[in-house]
Amino acid sequence: MPEFSDLEKAIDTLVSQFHSASADKSPTLKTDEFKGLLSSQMPNLGIGTEQGLGEIMRKMGVGDGEGISFKHFWNLIQSVATTQHGLLSGQKGSSCSCILL
Amino acid sequence: MPEFSDLEKAIDTLVSQFHSASADKSPTLKTDEFKGLLSSQMPNLGIGTEQGLGEIMRKMGVGDGEGISFKHFWNLIQSVATTQHGLLSGQKGSSCSCILL
Repeated sequence: MPEFSDLEKAIDTLVSQFHSASADKSPTLKTDEFKGLLSSQMPNLGIGTEQGLGEIMRKMGVGDGEGISFKHFWNLIQSVATTQHGLLSGQKGSSCSCILL
Repeated sequence: MPEFSDLEKAIDTLVSQFHSASADKSPTLKTDEFKGLLSSQMPNLGIGTEQGLGEIMRKMGVGDGEGISFKHFWNLIQSVATTQHGLLSGQKGSSCSCILL
């Protein structure tokens, strides 16, 4: 069993969390499955309301009635990570006052 | 101190690893700093040679003499994660036989 680095483990966590949220191991998540994933893993995103969830999915590029693909999910992760990187680097977003998306 | 989820910790790891690789906490990494990051954190990428490193940086979209930004780094992470997700989902890449990039 090879030893993995922190970075490799982090990537594995992102992929595994998405994958394990699908009850039938489908490549895409149903809205309820995605909602469960965010509720348990990203409680700070503020998806308490249906409206909040819909807004996030819209920004991720998910169309009406469409399943959530890993690519969609990745848009969200990228947004969170880029925001956090900007905060660490002390860069101010030009006109963004929101912490996420 | 709030408790963070596995997913949040994973995102934090990705950001922190990139950030801590910069000796002067600059928003971009110098080639040597980036090489050090990959050598320690992603030893399986095969950057043993200068040629291997150059190839990876080219695919990340890094121009000649340019620093490596978080956006560049993220292209690499995305590629690794997407590949891993495809493997987990049992999807075959259409014509890709390489594990990374």
